[in-house]
Amino acid sequence: MKMSEGVEWAAHCAVLLALLPAGASLPAHRLAEYHDVPGPYLAKSLQAMTRAGIVTSSAGRHGGYRLARPGNKISLLEVVVAIEGDDPMFRCSEIRRRGPSAVSARAYTPRCGIATAMGRAQEAWRTELERTTVADLAAGVLADAPRKAMDKGVTWLTSVIETRSPSAS
Amino acid sequence: MKMSEGVEWAAHCAVLLALLPAGASLPAHRLAEYHDVPGPYLAKSLQAMTRAGIVTSSAGRHGGYRLARPGNKISLLEVVVAIEGDDPMFRCSEIRRRGPSAVSARAYTPRCGIATAMGRAQEAWRTELERTTVADLAAGVLADAPRKAMDKGVTWLTSVIETRSPSAS
Repeated sequence: MKMSEGVEWAAHCAVLLALLPAGASLPAHRLAEYHDVPGPYLAKSLQAMTRAGIVTSSAGRHGGYRLARPGNKISLLEVVVAIEGDDPMFRCSEIRRRGPSAVSARAYTPRCGIATAMGRAQEAWRTELERTTVADLAAGVLADAPRKAMDKGVTWLTSVIETRSPSAS
Repeated sequence: MKMSEGVEWAAHCAVLLALLPAGASLPAHRLAEYHDVPGPYLAKSLQAMTRAGIVTSSAGRHGGYRLARPGNKISLLEVVVAIEGDDPMFRCSEIRRRGPSAVSARAYTPRCGIATAMGRAQEAWRTELERTTVADLAAGVLADAPRKAMDKGVTWLTSVIETRSPSAS
């Protein structure tokens, strides 16, 4: 029971976009380059985040991806759900209604007790992910990233944002 | 990100075993029959639960599976972990250490902030599953199962336990 790696990529992209200067954006291939992940696969994650209203993209010389909302209005849960979907981790196949004890489906409570307990656990997981925003994660990067990594990241971002050509968007 | 169906089977088996009369046990093929699930696949779940110390099995005329501990000492988390393992749902591939901002691995905090937030969510999920015991789930069945399903289940169990032959163990 594992999240796809697209979740990690999407979360890191959201955090990087939250750290961009106001009005700046980054094209998909630059997001892939910064995170050293495969561009075509990352593009799928970015499309999923676009559909979820987490990021938005524009064309043209200064086009690219940016957050669709302020980072403090985007939860980590939204990023996870954008990539993984929002299905229950536990699939109930109504085993209780099968076998020699089975009676008419109408006679059972709406939800099996096992599915209910699993649902409570997933809700606790969701609640915790909902509490963390992209802005929280970005603040964590500013607080925790090694000084030298921060300098290198800023240098790279500045050069990319300043030298962008139409073909890069 | 979904649990395997073996988790559902394992949880239902644990609950049924918790409801057996004292000293009784059920062979694997009877557990499969009661839940209407494929015997060979269920056997793998039962073996995993045996390795996890949730159930124990014995050979002979009255042999079969029974809970290895009282149901109030077995959490739903243990059942899930027995089948799914206990790896993090979120795999951190240390993206923060890649790309143009990368510096020496030693310079980074031990854990990426995104992995930390994901870990908190998984811990909330685990805590909730740990709170629910197999005995709780069994009590839920006694409270919620349709009267007629309960009667049919008891009739089946009584006949199976009373008529068991050595070949059934």
